[in-house]
Parts: sequence; C-alpha cells; structure tokens
Amino acid sequence: MAVSPLAPAAFPDLPVIQGVRFAAVEAGVRYKNRTDLMLAELCEGTTVAGVYTTSATRSAAVRDCQDKTGGVDQGRAAFLVNSGNSNAFTGQAGDEAVQAICAAAAETLGIDASRIFTSSTGVIGEPMKYERIVDALPKLSDALSDTAIDAAARAIMTTDTFPKGAAAEITVDGQTVRIAGIAKGSGMIAPDMATMLVYIFTDAKIGYRDLQGMLSHFTDRTFNCITVDSDTSTSDTLLMAATGASGVDVTGNSSFNSALEALMLNLAHQVVRDGEGATKFVEVRVSGAADDADARKVAMAIANSPLVKTAIAGEDPNWGRIVMAVGKSGAEADRDKLTIRFGDMLVAENGWVSSKYVEDDAAAYMKGQEIVIDLDMGLGEGISNVWTCDLTHRYIDINADYRS
Amino acid sequence: MAVSPLAPAAFPDLPVIQGVRFAAVEAGVRYKNRTDLMLAELCEGTTVAGVYTTSATRSAAVRDCQDKTGGVDQGRAAFLVNSGNSNAFTGQAGDEAVQAICAAAAETLGIDASRIFTSSTGVIGEPMKYERIVDALPKLSDALSDTAIDAAARAIMTTDTFPKGAAAEITVDGQTVRIAGIAKGSGMIAPDMATMLVYIFTDAKIGYRDLQGMLSHFTDRTFNCITVDSDTSTSDTLLMAATGASGVDVTGNSSFNSALEALMLNLAHQVVRDGEGATKFVEVRVSGAADDADARKVAMAIANSPLVKTAIAGEDPNWGRIVMAVGKSGAEADRDKLTIRFGDMLVAENGWVSSKYVEDDAAAYMKGQEIVIDLDMGLGEGISNVWTCDLTHRYIDINADYRS
Repeated sequence: MAVSPLAPAAFPDLPVIQGVRFAAVEAGVRYKNRTDLMLAELCEGTTVAGVYTTSATRSAAVRDCQDKTGGVDQGRAAFLVNSGNSNAFTGQAGDEAVQAICAAAAETLGIDASRIFTSSTGVIGEPMKYERIVDALPKLSDALSDTAIDAAARAIMTTDTFPKGAAAEITVDGQTVRIAGIAKGSGMIAPDMATMLVYIFTDAKIGYRDLQGMLSHFTDRTFNCITVDSDTSTSDTLLMAATGASGVDVTGNSSFNSALEALMLNLAHQVVRDGEGATKFVEVRVSGAADDADARKVAMAIANSPLVKTAIAGEDPNWGRIVMAVGKSGAEADRDKLTIRFGDMLVAENGWVSSKYVEDDAAAYMKGQEIVIDLDMGLGEGISNVWTCDLTHRYIDINADYRS
Repeated sequence: MAVSPLAPAAFPDLPVIQGVRFAAVEAGVRYKNRTDLMLAELCEGTTVAGVYTTSATRSAAVRDCQDKTGGVDQGRAAFLVNSGNSNAFTGQAGDEAVQAICAAAAETLGIDASRIFTSSTGVIGEPMKYERIVDALPKLSDALSDTAIDAAARAIMTTDTFPKGAAAEITVDGQTVRIAGIAKGSGMIAPDMATMLVYIFTDAKIGYRDLQGMLSHFTDRTFNCITVDSDTSTSDTLLMAATGASGVDVTGNSSFNSALEALMLNLAHQVVRDGEGATKFVEVRVSGAADDADARKVAMAIANSPLVKTAIAGEDPNWGRIVMAVGKSGAEADRDKLTIRFGDMLVAENGWVSSKYVEDDAAAYMKGQEIVIDLDMGLGEGISNVWTCDLTHRYIDINADYRS
C-alpha cells in the first residue's frame, strides 16, 4: 500500500530508554512475511499507567489490562502486542486466550502474570491462534534489545502505511530523562484493522497515581481530540511505562509534563496523517463557545461531518456545511455571532459571508495539504482544538473491500 | 442524473384533497428549464401544524414558519416553496427576503401574511433572488389547480433523483377522507441541496392541538428514524394542512392515525431510497435494549457508522463492525447477551459468531438490495427501528464536487 501523502519524511531516531528492551518477531498470527508480535520488557521499579477505549464491547485484552492497571506494584513488567487478530467479540474463548498468553509470557520472562499487559489488533470476531503467540515467546525473549523500538513500531502496524514514533529529552535538575513513544492507527479506529494502540516509555521516576493522572489528562487533549471517521474501536489502548532507571524523579515537573503532552500530540497527529484514505490534515479550532464542552461538541461535529469532510476532499471551500455542523452540534450558537476563517482568511461573520471573502482565494487555500478551520462562536471563553482528515474514495475502497 | 436504483417503479396516483389547490412554475431562482416554485393554497377552515429542524443555525424561512405555527386560526393559508437557494445563513437580508415574499404572496392570494408558510431549499449562504419569486406569484396563482400535486412534488426537488409522493384513503363513519403527501430529500439532509421538506394534506377536519400532537409523535417514529449521513439540515420542514373540506372530523380516530403514520413512514423511506449514492436500503431493528432511548442510540450508531455503511456498500457481511457500533453507542450493552441477525439469518450470539453462521450465505444475503440488520440486546424491552442506506463512492462524488 502506498504511504500516506501526509506521512512524516522519515521515522524519527528514538533514544534508548533505560530499563526497557524491545523485540519483534514473525509469529504468523495472520500475516505472512512480516513481524506481527512485539514485546517491551520493563525493569524492576517500573510504574505502568493506561487509558482504554470506553466501548461497551471492548476486547478481552483491554478488559484484562484494565484489571491490571493501578496500584503500587513496581515489579518487572511487559507489554506484549500482536497484530492480525484483535481477539475482540470472541466470547469466553477470547478471555481464555488472553489468560493463556499471559501465563506463558510470565513463565518465559519470569515476570508475574499480573504485570503482563497484552493488546491485540486486527480482525474482529475470528478465533485467535494464540498458540502461535505462545510458541513465539522464547524467540521473542531471545531477541530483546534496547534499540529495537523501531522494530516494535513496525510489528504493531495493520492498515497503517507508516510506523509512528516520537521522542523527547528533558533536563531535570541537570539530569537527562527521555521519553519515547510508538503508535499505530489508521482510521482513528476501525474495528477490523485500524485500532489505535500507543505505547510510551520513559526512564523517569514517577508514582502510579501521578503518571495515571497526567496520562488521562493529556489523553483528553490529544488522542481524544482526533477523529478519522467517528467510529470507536473495541481495542484502543494507551500504555505508558516509567522505568525510573534514570533515577530522576519527575513528579510535578512541568518540563516533563509539557514534553509528554507534546509527544502525545505528535503521535496523535501521526495517526490522523495515516487516516484511511486521507489526503488533507485538518485542524478545527473553536473559540468563544459558551464553555469548553460546547467548544468540543462544535469542533467534533465539524470534524465528523461527512459533508464537511467530502467538501475538503473536493477542495471546495464550502463554509455553508460548517454552519450546518455548528447548527447540529447541540452546542449553544448564535448565527449572527459566528466568525468563520479558513486559516487567516475571514470567511463569514455577522450571520453571513464576509464582504471581504473571495471565493477564488478560498479555493486556492483548500488546495493545500494542511487546512485550518477556525471558528469564533462569539459567546464565551470555551475553546477546543480537534484534528481530522478528509473523506475520500480511498476510505470507501479500504473499508468496503477490506475483507474480500 | 440517473434515478436511484432504490426508487419506486412510478410516482403514485395522488387523490384530489378537497380544499387544496396546487401550482408549480419556473421562477428561475437558480435552475433553468425546470420548475422551482410551488404553491399549495388552502381553503378557509384549514388547520396547519409543523415540525422543524432543531438546528441552531436554521434558516430564516424555518424561523418564520415556527413563529406562525400554532394557535387556533383556521383562515385560508398557503405553503410556498422554492428550490435552488435555501436562504440559510444569509443574515438580516435573509429574514427580509422571507418577509418580502410573504407580503407579496399575501397580496396576490388575499391571504393574511401570518398564514403564508414558506420553505427554501438549495445552496446555503448565497443571497436569494427573492424578487424572482415575487415576480412569479401572479403566474403561480393563475396556475392553481386541484390536480397539480405531482407538479408540486417535482418543483421542490434538488439533488433528488425522483419525486416522492404517498396517499391514503380512510373511511370514517361511512365517509371518506383522504391524505396525500409529497417530500423531497436526498441525503437525509445536506445543507446545500438535500434538505428534507415534507408537505401533507388532508380534507379531514381536526383541531390544531390534535394535529400537531399527532404529527410530532409520528415524526419521531418516521422522519426522525431515518438517516443518510448523520448531518442535520438548516432547513428541514414538515408541514401538514387539514382543510376540513370533507366535513369529517377525525379527532382521535385510530384508522386515520394509522394511515397518517403509514404515509409518513412511506415518504420517509422514499427519502432514504433517494439517499445520495445509495445502492442498498437498510433497516436496523433493535430490540431487547434497556429502554427505547438506548435502542435508538444503538440503532442510530449502527445506521450512522461509516464503517458499517461502507461494508454494506461492499456487500461484506462484516458483523464485527456492528459489534463496534453497539460498543460506541453509549447504550448499556453486554457482549455475551447480544444476538445479531442479517434478516432471519443468525450471525452472532453468546458473545461470539454463531456456530450456525455460514459466511457464504451471509455474503449472498448482502448482495440483495434490501438489507435488515436485527439486534437483540438481551437486556430489556427497549425497541427502535431505523432506516438508512449504504455509503458509496457516489456519495463522495456528489458531495465533494457539488459546487464545482
């Protein structure tokens, strides 16, 4: 499959994170001639936090991770992720597969099963050949290396057209801590193959409660602010491990917080940039709403509107559809107080198209690859930024024909 | 444009409704060489009820109709509808256009302006050449005829590929009353050209409060249960006129109620059958939900899911995406209690695909033009039926390229 036109030029150089080793192998869960199983082994002292899909039909692995997240245990741990089969909606057999994988990994790695966090991404509703994962564990364990994070990023891809990674280095009290993250996702989510999975590692030291609080807070401003098609995966998982191996405590450190949020936003944007069929990266900025919740409603209504997204695909500066999306959002809105801009270009104000608006200029703007839709609701202080992509023929090709 | 493959074989024969006369002319609002303005003139004694879009950015005509709906006035009345320009998001000038049109129609027809109900459908945000409507009024008035309802149905079309009509005849106490309705819509709604407009006429006698109550109640079970793309128009309008000219009072008459609901459902289905790019007519039946509201949430989540709709377009029996949509709906759900059927074919139960499920049979079923997705949530008594269509390349063609 051709790489998305919105992909970064190259996969970034990711630093070694002290206390983490990675491996990726071909387990043959479904794909042939590519890696489909990745392991991140985490040293003694590691704190693990997680954020998961809110789906009522979430997968067995997600439920298992949720059970294991929290508490003060800082023993060794592992993240084990396969692509090719999501083990979702596979009934009791799916739960048993997760238990079997965790038990085998615990034995192979000498890590307590309560500290083995697994994810599965791929086809939904088909029995997962978990024995292939179990059988691959010795080879996977032997392959562990502190520089294999890029191989890990590739092993978790499904319909992704490029591997996704980001890193940060922060100086705290004269000492260096590092963060590296990898993600997969294409279509914010598609239950077959485009589940969003994110794994972030740092050698900083931080307790569970602080790490979890930060992760949840930043998720709401990053991964929860992207949408490709408004559908929600049964398997979405974000796990973060802080190994503490640098010896540097970052509790309450604002530089670390900022760096983590920026890294999460970077990965979130990469997921949108690999949105199924995407040819445009779209930022929707809403300000002046009655409150932040209303701003989010408006931004998401615009970002999820098939009519807005097809207009962008057609490079049509169809601001009328933005007005429509504002109207249907359920947020408080006053037609005559709305101001709409494409980038810096004033489009509409005072309840009508602006007298300064030139359709040809707007049409030229829409030919760009990065589109900003800026709305001032003119009512209050509520703001929200959301990122999405356009809706193209390719999206339909991918999703109408996927299983055949 | 080719007629939708889901269109009825022919436009139905609609009966004369005593007390209503219709006309349609070419006013040249935007289109050339086709009618674009229709009038329904309603006799003394007519009750008018209406249901309107809930959009916060609804059009000037909708706001004006809302102001005029209600009360006990049963004088003469008129519905005046143009296609080609929606007069939505046109600021103060839009409001003035509506006032000018109503004033001119009042003078031409000798009907109080407070009883002139107008609708406009077409491009959003462009100044409407309302003088062309005003200029056409004498010709329109001269053309009034009690058999021109089919011409009226054609004049309100925009991206519709066929005119939509339905009728019913009911015997009440040995006397006959008739109902006839026309509708336009293609894409449940698209703010440019595919607003949903519905006009229903009966010669039965019924007071405002009863008529409005019935109309609102049935709308919730018919027009509010269809979706093409989840977008909500700024102009959606449903108006019903009961002229009373038959002399038959139908207040509380269950045969009339049933006939009206069936007629509204018939028109609603025709709107879906003309959904932009539609090739499949899809009924989503949800039962066993915790309550009706939850059932509606699940049904709408399935009917609006781009992943479900593209799978149907691809004739892929991708039941995993239905599970996904249930999960994201926000309704109470238990994976292990869900039962999914395609038509009568059992697909999944007890948290997994059924042992009786044969993929080839399901694939054959999906090749049909009429698809039923049936879900039993296994939790309670909540039910909801919703109708939609598939999401195809043609939808993107229509909406990406419309204005160019």
